[in-house]
Amino acid sequence: MNQIELFAPASVANVSCGFDVLGFCLDPIGDIMRISKTTTPGVIIGKIAGQDLPTDPLKNVASVAGLALLKEHSSEFGFQIDIDKKIKPGSGIGSSAASAAGAVFGINELLGAPYSKKELIRFAMEGEAIASGAAHADNLAPVLLGGFTLVRSNKILDVIKLPNPKELVATIIHPKIELKTLHSRAILKTTIPLNKAIEQWGNLGALVSALYTEDYELLSRSIQDKVIEPYRAMLIPKFEETRQAALNAGALGSGISGSGPSIFALSKGIQVAKKVGLEMEAIYKDLDLDYQLHLSKINTEGIKVLNRS
Amino acid sequence: MNQIELFAPASVANVSCGFDVLGFCLDPIGDIMRISKTTTPGVIIGKIAGQDLPTDPLKNVASVAGLALLKEHSSEFGFQIDIDKKIKPGSGIGSSAASAAGAVFGINELLGAPYSKKELIRFAMEGEAIASGAAHADNLAPVLLGGFTLVRSNKILDVIKLPNPKELVATIIHPKIELKTLHSRAILKTTIPLNKAIEQWGNLGALVSALYTEDYELLSRSIQDKVIEPYRAMLIPKFEETRQAALNAGALGSGISGSGPSIFALSKGIQVAKKVGLEMEAIYKDLDLDYQLHLSKINTEGIKVLNRS
Repeated sequence: MNQIELFAPASVANVSCGFDVLGFCLDPIGDIMRISKTTTPGVIIGKIAGQDLPTDPLKNVASVAGLALLKEHSSEFGFQIDIDKKIKPGSGIGSSAASAAGAVFGINELLGAPYSKKELIRFAMEGEAIASGAAHADNLAPVLLGGFTLVRSNKILDVIKLPNPKELVATIIHPKIELKTLHSRAILKTTIPLNKAIEQWGNLGALVSALYTEDYELLSRSIQDKVIEPYRAMLIPKFEETRQAALNAGALGSGISGSGPSIFALSKGIQVAKKVGLEMEAIYKDLDLDYQLHLSKINTEGIKVLNRS
Repeated sequence: MNQIELFAPASVANVSCGFDVLGFCLDPIGDIMRISKTTTPGVIIGKIAGQDLPTDPLKNVASVAGLALLKEHSSEFGFQIDIDKKIKPGSGIGSSAASAAGAVFGINELLGAPYSKKELIRFAMEGEAIASGAAHADNLAPVLLGGFTLVRSNKILDVIKLPNPKELVATIIHPKIELKTLHSRAILKTTIPLNKAIEQWGNLGALVSALYTEDYELLSRSIQDKVIEPYRAMLIPKFEETRQAALNAGALGSGISGSGPSIFALSKGIQVAKKVGLEMEAIYKDLDLDYQLHLSKINTEGIKVLNRS
């Protein structure tokens, strides 16, 4: 195998109550990446379509992630990464995670898969770190493992794949403003009230339980964030109205996707998710602001191989 | 039925990473309570053996809880509560919760069980509130429902019964000093660092997952508390040494039981739990301080009826 083409999906991190630890993988939204063997060792960035991203291998998250892998697993040949970048950076649906995860996944395959998907996360984190200012796995884990994932510890990287209630469908609205994770992290306080923290971990524990028991009502009650959202909400136009519109249309829960500006909603069944999308869209139609709307089942597989040659 | 005799068990709240939300029920440790119908409406405290507790119905947690129930469900007859109080108040294993839960459970039975066990929690909370200064369900929920429980919200009382890995055995050492929950709450800060909070909810989410999947290793990695324990540990003689001794002896995890001073350990299998007990005891034998050691399977049933007449 000299070349692999793959689909690197978008993802939703945090999911309201699981700041920095929880995430799930999206389905139809994602980048197309082609990774090819080259004769010169190292990683180079070839063509990037769709977005204006650095081609310097030391500045692009995909190549940085790939180089992290090659630092541990040396290779006589090198790799070229071409990306059809459909996920807009700074959209809050894991643009950098898709690139970083896609790169290490592809390179790993071309090396004969010396690492498991779980092991690949830590290499991808080095790419993620240059985009978000901190090495987080909350988007990378769902992209690599699929479905819902929990990062117990970012420090020693302990990642758990959670079950996926079959009828969940995500609706995402992406207002076309760019919010760098770096900036939306800077707005947060370094301490939080203990009583809010207790509510948060009560909700996260309940959400994990709800995923195992497919208890959609409990899931709905758990999707709350009193810690992070109040600060970040002010960076997103009409956030609260859009969230309310989603809930009024029947969504189980709604909140900021990752560090925003995208807003996610989770619904039971495709019909509700569509209605939720229409109501979220209704809020944005009144604004002089471009947006995109996505509908997605939970992608339980993560990255998909499109072609090997 | 005019009289009911029951076993009101002790319990372990917090379980390290689940401050104010998580708890599990113990088996052989608990109070014996007898609740009898009386001709005069209301609740009176009869005999209390074993401990020196208030007999004024407005000051005893059992009667306060019972009165809370009767405020909503009036009764032509009244109730007398006699308690053989084996759980020492201020021990950190849910002494007040046992009394409050036992009272509402017994009265509910004598009324023909108008309420479910889950519904009884909110009445018991009114009793718990006078003991600990705040209405918490983290000990009450496991006593009434059995096994492991999660309180998603204390405010609107949303309680989840979690599964119980079969081989778990608890070891509890109870140093005979009294720590009032009121005081061990006062020592806590009202804000906590965000990065510690993230670790805490990562661990709690993982622990809930581990209970569903019976993943003892994940359970072990999750039993950590970087938020509350560092403050409360200083109130408990030799806490860190005892915890370390438990871990060295093979315990999956160890921490402060409730608000202390009791220290719990969880082990896989009775043999390990016994060894853990010996090693914890070894630390305390060197101190000029009385203590008690308990070994207990997880009590999946909660309160047990001993006799009805």
